[in-house]
Amino acid sequence: MNSRAIGVFDSGIGGLTVYKAIKKKMPGEKVIYLGDTAHLPYGTKSPETITKFSEENSKFLIGKGVKIVVIACNSSSSYAVSHLQKILDIPVLGVIDPGAEAAVENGEKEIGVIGTSATISSGAYEKSIMEKDPDAKITSQDCPLFVPLVEEGWIDHKITDLVIQEYLLPLKKQGIKTLVLGCTHYPVLKDAISRVLGSGITLIDSAEVMAERTNSILKKLGWLKAQESSNGEDEFYVTDFPERFKKVGEIFLKRKIDKVEMISL
Amino acid sequence: MNSRAIGVFDSGIGGLTVYKAIKKKMPGEKVIYLGDTAHLPYGTKSPETITKFSEENSKFLIGKGVKIVVIACNSSSSYAVSHLQKILDIPVLGVIDPGAEAAVENGEKEIGVIGTSATISSGAYEKSIMEKDPDAKITSQDCPLFVPLVEEGWIDHKITDLVIQEYLLPLKKQGIKTLVLGCTHYPVLKDAISRVLGSGITLIDSAEVMAERTNSILKKLGWLKAQESSNGEDEFYVTDFPERFKKVGEIFLKRKIDKVEMISL
Repeated sequence: MNSRAIGVFDSGIGGLTVYKAIKKKMPGEKVIYLGDTAHLPYGTKSPETITKFSEENSKFLIGKGVKIVVIACNSSSSYAVSHLQKILDIPVLGVIDPGAEAAVENGEKEIGVIGTSATISSGAYEKSIMEKDPDAKITSQDCPLFVPLVEEGWIDHKITDLVIQEYLLPLKKQGIKTLVLGCTHYPVLKDAISRVLGSGITLIDSAEVMAERTNSILKKLGWLKAQESSNGEDEFYVTDFPERFKKVGEIFLKRKIDKVEMISL
Repeated sequence: MNSRAIGVFDSGIGGLTVYKAIKKKMPGEKVIYLGDTAHLPYGTKSPETITKFSEENSKFLIGKGVKIVVIACNSSSSYAVSHLQKILDIPVLGVIDPGAEAAVENGEKEIGVIGTSATISSGAYEKSIMEKDPDAKITSQDCPLFVPLVEEGWIDHKITDLVIQEYLLPLKKQGIKTLVLGCTHYPVLKDAISRVLGSGITLIDSAEVMAERTNSILKKLGWLKAQESSNGEDEFYVTDFPERFKKVGEIFLKRKIDKVEMISL
């Protein structure tokens, strides 16, 4: 297992923050990334449809020989993770529980959760946090403009700072001490969000949390890659429009993605 | 035919600007609106898939007895309109050609076109304008943040004004005299766009143009409704999540939409 790749899937491009965090934590590991761009957004689809797509994505990655499936997509993590854990023979990791756990471990009761409208209205983070700490005081806010702002590349931009103020200053006034970035795109805005909120609020970057968790699972299983060997370049697959993935991917990775292959599932 | 309804379909909610313009122009006409919200966005789908969805939408409306099919969706109008005109027995009207024609009829050569990334990269408006006036000088700009700003309800908002400046002041500097609002959402921002651009640039509101054109087709055929009779309330159908359609629909219509029925095609 050690020489096998880590599989990551997302409904689109946002999971590249998870890819990046995994590579930072475990630079020697090969990653195979699948963005199901033909079916995005998952957030507006039914749980049954999301589960079906997630199963297809996982099977594609397993066909590529991955040793673990990391689900970067929030909707997929909400609805499909337990089903996938049941039917797949390798570990499957969703994004919700590790993020919720990290928020609770920060030790403060006043927790803010931000995400897309679909994620926030699903209540998945709130549920997971309350299971871990029934005394938590959670304030949620959907931030529908964050994803298009990131995809437009307006990362260090006065308009983005104003939008962050509009969405997040009410949460700051509410007294939150911990803020869960509950969408894979949001880590790209981490510096801007810190700048607007100032000190005193801990940001939970779910991409980093996922990378930590992936590392600890592989370590426990003895499946981490032996450092010196090489198992080739990372691979990127999408189900539609590789050109857009390449273009917007540069915003996430701050480097060119040379090869993105289009596949059909 | 006179007492039958006008059918309008869109991939989602944006077509409500067309609905509103039709009702303003022909208050006595009944309209049946279908938003194919389960499949949105169309802009990132293949021409074959868009044509298939458009055919299903049209057949649903025809099943409801409409006398004309008005396609409010840009992607559908780009790829499916000639196919639908071939297979359907009633008039079918797309959004691209009337918009392009109105732009050319404004009589200025310097024409700006704005739309979603999918519409702009399709080049559909440019092609249609150049067919009508080969001497036109067209500047195109995609404005990916306009749709989420409208759906967030930030219509009279300083952030929206700043975003409009960011996208459109370069077009103004370029010397455009006519600006085609090439996305069904954009008429909602018409006042804000006028405010930012100032005088001297004519905005082509494709929703108004569609309403004019629908009226003239029905008039020519003698199919306009006799004014005094009543043929019932307008009907709204979606293929997913009626609640979101109701909520965001209020931003478009400035009134409550009481009944939105979910159907499966």
